[in-house]
Amino acid sequence: DNTATKKYKIAVIPGDGIGKEVTPWAQKALEKAAQGVAEFDYEHFDLGAERYLKDGAILPEEEEERIKANDAILLGAVGDPRIKAGILERGLLLKLRFDLDQFVNLRPSKLYKGVTSPLANPGNIDFVVVREGTEGLYCGAGGAVRRDTPNEVATEVSINTAYGVERVVRYAFKLAMKRRKHVTLVHKKNVLVNAGDMWQRIVDKVGEEYPEVTHDYQHVDAATIFLVSNPSRFDVILTDNLFGDILTDEAGAVVGGVGYSASGCINATDKYPSMFEPIHGSAPDIAGQNKANPTAAILSAAMLLEHLGFDDAAKKIHTAVEADIAELGSTVRSTDQVGEDILKRI
Amino acid sequence: DNTATKKYKIAVIPGDGIGKEVTPWAQKALEKAAQGVAEFDYEHFDLGAERYLKDGAILPEEEEERIKANDAILLGAVGDPRIKAGILERGLLLKLRFDLDQFVNLRPSKLYKGVTSPLANPGNIDFVVVREGTEGLYCGAGGAVRRDTPNEVATEVSINTAYGVERVVRYAFKLAMKRRKHVTLVHKKNVLVNAGDMWQRIVDKVGEEYPEVTHDYQHVDAATIFLVSNPSRFDVILTDNLFGDILTDEAGAVVGGVGYSASGCINATDKYPSMFEPIHGSAPDIAGQNKANPTAAILSAAMLLEHLGFDDAAKKIHTAVEADIAELGSTVRSTDQVGEDILKRI
Ligand SMILES: CC(C)[C@H](C(=O)O)[C@@H](O)C(=O)O
Ligand SMILES: CC(C)[C@H](C(=O)O)[C@@H](O)C(=O)O
Repeated sequence: DNTATKKYKIAVIPGDGIGKEVTPWAQKALEKAAQGVAEFDYEHFDLGAERYLKDGAILPEEEEERIKANDAILLGAVGDPRIKAGILERGLLLKLRFDLDQFVNLRPSKLYKGVTSPLANPGNIDFVVVREGTEGLYCGAGGAVRRDTPNEVATEVSINTAYGVERVVRYAFKLAMKRRKHVTLVHKKNVLVNAGDMWQRIVDKVGEEYPEVTHDYQHVDAATIFLVSNPSRFDVILTDNLFGDILTDEAGAVVGGVGYSASGCINATDKYPSMFEPIHGSAPDIAGQNKANPTAAILSAAMLLEHLGFDDAAKKIHTAVEADIAELGSTVRSTDQVGEDILKRI
Repeated sequence: DNTATKKYKIAVIPGDGIGKEVTPWAQKALEKAAQGVAEFDYEHFDLGAERYLKDGAILPEEEEERIKANDAILLGAVGDPRIKAGILERGLLLKLRFDLDQFVNLRPSKLYKGVTSPLANPGNIDFVVVREGTEGLYCGAGGAVRRDTPNEVATEVSINTAYGVERVVRYAFKLAMKRRKHVTLVHKKNVLVNAGDMWQRIVDKVGEEYPEVTHDYQHVDAATIFLVSNPSRFDVILTDNLFGDILTDEAGAVVGGVGYSASGCINATDKYPSMFEPIHGSAPDIAGQNKANPTAAILSAAMLLEHLGFDDAAKKIHTAVEADIAELGSTVRSTDQVGEDILKRI
């Protein structure tokens, strides 16, 4: 009886390099884990560096509209060294995050049993970074005058609104209620006094509505120290767009490499689809060699399932990934081998 | 015969908390190492949290003028949790860096033999971060409208000039010539396209004048990964004010704690005095207990000596510190004990 099976439309953007190799495994994991409860119709989008080099298109309006009509997005990775920095980032990846109002950039960091951390005594690492996704220094505000002269002045403007901050702060406190009930705000309020002060005031205010959740504050520079010296102290790290970018890469390193870290760009109002991706890049150096680890992409499928409300299906993926890493994490395997090994356990 | 002995006036700002305990050891190391070649007249300044709590003064103009009349500045640490974030930072520390045009913030990171790094396989870590000190997001540009309402907007503006970037870029390449001849520019040029592009163009241009120095580029997020996964790859890291703040704290953690890291805020034109300080803070939790490690403060004295041209004297301090750490680095000692142990070796 298939009447209980819900149907979803998923936009798939494999992108470039290893993105193309790992995304099919995310799709397979999605399907297998959701068998009997959900079905997926995929719409593929040829976007990224290769498309741009072919016909100059980055994110045509018509394609963006079609992406918006989906229930969720699976993204592989985008980027190619032949293309000047910023073009695809701002024209495709960030454009989607902003246009689709994906204001929560959710990035769990977990040290799996069987993965070797570069830290001598990593402890039990299991935290989530809630990174704001639609404001701050990522707005594209700023410019340059007298470009390429000795009198050039270049500016970058960080724009932060109470509206934008409050909604992501609420998300973080709600998430903390389902976890170990602790939120750490990370900012640089001793220097960025305007934005930092606003973040702190909003955290204090929202925090009052969650008396069970404790919260503290760390400067971003201090937070980079604790990520190395005592990462197990963190539960939910709440921070702005740029600091979140920096901290989650450091966190990825600390849990043994970005190959095990997925992320969700979430529109928590469901007005537009949310997007799920591994945090690693397109890795042109190993692309096409069946070498990339698809684990992060598979974990991004689990995040997609959670987002759609299929916690049990997501759990199946997590359990399979954990078992796979615990048993085979240290063996050298091809992309397809890891994919198959995990699939078998789902 | 004392006629060859040069005389210098040093402004001393011990500041707060452990700053008061470690700074005297920096002075003693300075004197002993420079015996026979330089003499120091100290002028003490009572600035920092305690002074502010006493009479509300942060950096009175008259005192700043007297500081400017010195040949160099020794700073301990400034800060107290009773004071709202930003007041002392922007009113004292950053005001000095900006008013005295200390455009190079020089921060060496070295893993000393005898210090335990939190990394399992740290390798041979020995790099210097050249952080711009008078621009970027530290300018204090920005503001807030509709403060404390649901419609608040807070901005922070990063201001970057070709003038300001070029002088610090030149400093980095010159420094690389005395080291392993490699410069890594760290920025986020795929998002902060205006400032990032200017930094890259200026690095490329200045780099042509230093054909022996190779240079590459890393996004700040990727750099936080390499600081953990392969820190020995770095020689000179060149970056802006905020990224430098973040990376040097992470680097401090990686080399076993900020207790071993000193920094110089350098006006390379010598128009105003340069300032030398440990990178650790005032540590109110251990203040007054004779527990703080004075090694970073003593290393800041060595940086001061190098800045004044006394390389041999600076070397004496480095050698003494290295020997002390190698032999006694893992024993628990009081501030004064470490100070005396190092002094004896100078
Ligand atoms: C590619 C880049 C624009 C992006 C970011 O800075 O957000 C990436 O680093 C990430 O963290 O997803
Ligand atoms: C105290 C603070 C203003 C300062 C900075 O951000 O520069 C400190 O973190 C540093 O690195 O010297």
